Parts: sequence; structure tokens; C-alpha cells
Amino acid sequence: MFQTIEIDKIIQQCFSSISFKPYPENLYGPLRYMIAIGGKRIRPRLCLTAYNLFSDKVDNSILKPMMALEVFHCFTLIHDDIMDNSDRRRGQPTVRKKWNDNVAILSGDVMSIEAYRLLSEAPSEILPAALKLFNETAEKVCEGQQLDMDFEKFSVVTLDEYLKMIGLKTAALIAGSGKMGALIAGAPNKVCEAIYDYGYQVGIAFQIMDDYLDTFGDPIIFGKNIGGDIVHNKKSWLLVYALKSASSEQAAELKRILSMPVDSEENRNAKISRMKELYVALGADTAALSEIEKCHKAAFDALRGSGLEQAQLERLRDYMNSLFNRKR
Amino acid sequence: MFQTIEIDKIIQQCFSSISFKPYPENLYGPLRYMIAIGGKRIRPRLCLTAYNLFSDKVDNSILKPMMALEVFHCFTLIHDDIMDNSDRRRGQPTVRKKWNDNVAILSGDVMSIEAYRLLSEAPSEILPAALKLFNETAEKVCEGQQLDMDFEKFSVVTLDEYLKMIGLKTAALIAGSGKMGALIAGAPNKVCEAIYDYGYQVGIAFQIMDDYLDTFGDPIIFGKNIGGDIVHNKKSWLLVYALKSASSEQAAELKRILSMPVDSEENRNAKISRMKELYVALGADTAALSEIEKCHKAAFDALRGSGLEQAQLERLRDYMNSLFNRKR
Repeated sequence: MFQTIEIDKIIQQCFSSISFKPYPENLYGPLRYMIAIGGKRIRPRLCLTAYNLFSDKVDNSILKPMMALEVFHCFTLIHDDIMDNSDRRRGQPTVRKKWNDNVAILSGDVMSIEAYRLLSEAPSEILPAALKLFNETAEKVCEGQQLDMDFEKFSVVTLDEYLKMIGLKTAALIAGSGKMGALIAGAPNKVCEAIYDYGYQVGIAFQIMDDYLDTFGDPIIFGKNIGGDIVHNKKSWLLVYALKSASSEQAAELKRILSMPVDSEENRNAKISRMKELYVALGADTAALSEIEKCHKAAFDALRGSGLEQAQLERLRDYMNSLFNRKR
Repeated sequence: MFQTIEIDKIIQQCFSSISFKPYPENLYGPLRYMIAIGGKRIRPRLCLTAYNLFSDKVDNSILKPMMALEVFHCFTLIHDDIMDNSDRRRGQPTVRKKWNDNVAILSGDVMSIEAYRLLSEAPSEILPAALKLFNETAEKVCEGQQLDMDFEKFSVVTLDEYLKMIGLKTAALIAGSGKMGALIAGAPNKVCEAIYDYGYQVGIAFQIMDDYLDTFGDPIIFGKNIGGDIVHNKKSWLLVYALKSASSEQAAELKRILSMPVDSEENRNAKISRMKELYVALGADTAALSEIEKCHKAAFDALRGSGLEQAQLERLRDYMNSLFNRKR
């Protein structure tokens, strides 16, 4: 097994040398741009980590499918940014902002095809299972995005609905990434499933942490403005928890905050600070952190009885810790 | 080999019984809608016709990949209609019009994934080649759409540029459909390539015919208003031919017509009738028909030396004739 730092280096090399056709430039330029503006590469990292639990033979038959997962993820971001009308992504202009909506639609489309091209380099005897996993996962991501948009119109979303939505939108692709690595390494089915379940819990925890940091993170370390979810009345874990836990008096305050205007910086800041206050009064911040802890435990429980050895379990623990010792 | 009518019946059954998940409704409803509003199913028809030249064993391992081609085609229509701002498709409201742009983006995305799901039912020993063909074809369709949008901003497009664009946007998927059928039937590589080349020429001819009918078709039989391409100054085969063939005097008239307003029905009709007059004066209408003839010949030439027998060649001739004895 490689060291974590070696895995990170391989991944960095893969994405710095990834190439797309030069022409038509308006079609393929946005693909290069999306890969170049970076990201944490958490899906390929889990894929390669899971693969490496069983094999040290790192060649295109794992690296290309691994890249497929990130390329697919980037495609969904390009289209999500159109649907959400977003101008910024990872501190840079979104594709729709830098080019336009039509370019974002079509370059997103071709980016999803590029993901399938990369996936097609999986070993041919594994390809049917790998393609099935990829399709099921991709479908879930779309379903999650649809629920996310549907929820915008709901006045109340339950924690179960929220968990279902992020399970589809975020956790499934992380889970699928881990399973893809194990599958291509030829790991037994039981282990592949255990790693999927582990990845799913890690993914849920990751999204809750993301929601937590959006309100309670350090803006300098987090790398984006704090409070975006509050400004947009987004049904984040914190808001869903608050909707559930508020007394009738607090519920009235919550309703008032949700209807506060966001037309000036002053108004936005006032809304953010009043909502943060309410969250703290409700204990939503500490509840989020303990929910994340619960997911961590569930992630590890999923691996129990799978037959993985101590050294392999350590690697998966390291991966998980690397995601959560983050402030961004 | 089946009769053409039997092939059509199989295809009709496939698409009337195709099913997508019931939920989320806003995600999968548009897929059912797009399949239900029909179309000529020319891609699956060629796929199954090509398959049936070599095999009578018709089961899911050919029918599902065959459906994948149509599902993929429908996905591209959903997204094209957003990019082109179109409200009508096959006499019905487009997905973006019936729902909205966001629904059209996301349901298009999931429809392309559904295409890959259907494709994944190809026999596992063929799957790597089938997936490669599908990816290459899908990529070409996107490249063609990009060129089509790029050309809108050009004042002049050459016939070569036009042919390259429709080769990617239209012909590649028809060619790929024929090749897919032959491939899954286990036909020799040389035959698969010959059928691809045949399908490519058929596809070019099909698009030129579409452009011809848009101006010179019978509106009742064609099923849509005549002159849409003229109203939108679309770089159709006729316009590209006219740009190339006009004398300096005719070029000035062409320029005048292109700048005519289309803000009322009267103005639109005036523009259409003046452009038709010019096309006829330039012989663009008969030139289009003889170009289509040339493609038909090239399509058949492509099959020469492939080793196909007379009865097989007849089937491919029947298929081609069925497309061009159309007035819609």
C-alpha cells in the first residue's frame, strides 16, 4: 500500500496532465477550466485509496475510471451552477458566467460523455459491473439535485427528507467512488458493499460538515463567504434541524429571519447574525457536530465483518480523518 | 431476416413499453413525454435493420442498445431546444416550454444516463466496443451542435463547413446506429465499417432533405410550418448553396432578404416568398435534390466490396428508400 501522500501525488499528476480535444474551443475549453480550478478531489482519492487496499498495480485501468468520477462530478457542477444561477465556484467565475448558459449546457453534456470515455478504460472483464455502478450512481446524483430543487419550494423539510436528498446528491457518488476502486481491484463483493456503505456515511458527514462550515466556518480558511446558505434560505442541515427543534416562539423568530431582506450587505449581515444566534440558542451547531460523529462511527461500523485487515482499516480511517480535519 | 413491417412493429412495441422511474416526477416525467411525442425512430430502425442482416435472434441484448440510440437522440433534442430557445417540437410544446429550463437541463442529463443504462445491456463481450462506439458518436453530436451554434455568428459558411457540421450533428449518430446493430450481431469489422459509411451518407442526405423540405415541402404533409429556416436566417444547405452560387447582384438581393424583418406574419411571409424565389432562380432546389442523389449513390458505393449479399443489400436499400419517400 502507498502512503496517503503518494496517492495524492498520483492524483495531482493525473489531473494536471488530463487532456481534452482542442477543438471546438467553446466546447472543450470549459472542461479544461473546470479541472484546472481544482477542488479537493475527494472522489478520486477515495477510489484510489480503496483500490490500493488490494493492489499496488496502478495503471490506466484504475486511473482512468478514477478520473471519470471527478470529471462526472465537475459536469454536475457546471449544470448545477446554471440551475442555481451561480456566478462563483471555488473562488472563480462559473462556466455560465465566464462563457454563457448555452456553453455551460453543451460543455457539461460533453463532459459527462468524457467521463464515460474514461470509465471505458476499466478492465474489460470488470466493465459491465463498473458501468452499472457508474450509471446507478450518476442517476442518483441527478435525483438528488431534483429533490434539492423541489425542496426549495417546500416550507418545511424533515431531517429524513434532507438525509435522503444529500444521500442521493452527495453521498452516493462518494460511496460509488470507493466501491469503484474496490471493484476494479477485484475485491470480493462483500468488501465492495462494505466500502460503499462506509463511503455513504462519510459522504453524509461531509455534506453536514459543509453545511456547518457555511455558517460557522472561518471565512479565511473556508475560502468563501460565510452565511451564503442563510442568505439564500437554503434548507441546510442547520435550518432543517432548527425547523424541527424550535419552540413556537423560536419558530416565529425563524419565520421572521427567513423573510428578512438581503438586498444590501447590511441587511445580509443582519440576517446572518440573527440566524446564527438562533442556531446557537437551539444547539444546532453542536448537534451538527455530534451528527457528524455519529456518521463517522456508522462509517466504521459498516466495515466491521467485511474481513478487512487492520492496516486496511487504518487507511480508510486516515482518509476519513483527512476530510474532517478541514476547515474548508 | 424480418420484413420491414415486422421491424417497425418491434420498434413500436419497444417504445410504447419503455419505462422510466416514477419518481421524482419532474425528473423522469419529461423522459416519458419525449418518447411519447414520437418521431420517426430512424436510428433504432437502422440499428435493428443492420443487426437483422446477420441475426434473427431479437432479444434485450440488441433491443436495449437500440433503444439507447433513440433515448440519447431525444436527450440531445431536449437540450438543443433550450439552446435554440424553441417552444415547439414535433407539433408539441418542448420540455423547456411545458416545464421550464431547469427541468429540461436536469431531465436531459438523466436521459443521457438512461441511454447508457440501456446500452449496458449489450452482450458483455461486445460491451467494450459498443461503449467506445457510443462515446465517440455522442461526442460528435455535441461537437456538431457546437459548430451549428458557432456558425450562427458567421456571415458566410462554406459547403464544406456545412457538411462537416451536419456530419457531426446528424450523420454520425445515424452511422453509429447502423454500426451498433452490425457490431452486436457479431458482423466482421469490415462490414461494420461499411455500414457506418453507408449510414453516414444516408444521414447527410437526410439532413439535406430536411433542409429542402423546410422550404419546399408541403406544410400539411411536412407537419410543420414551411420557411422556419428562412425566417431564422438559418445556415441551411439551401442558404449555404445560395451564398456560394449567387452573382454579385443576387448576393445583394440575398443580403437584403436576410435583413428583412420577421416581426409580423405578413413580413415573415414576404421574406419566405422572396427567398424561395431567389433559391429557385439559383437552382438551389434542384441542386439539393441532386446532392441527395449523390449521397444515395455514395451510400451504396460504401457497401461495395464489403461482402454483403444481394438480399442484405436490398434491405439497406429499402431502409434508405423509406427515408426519402417521405414528404415530412
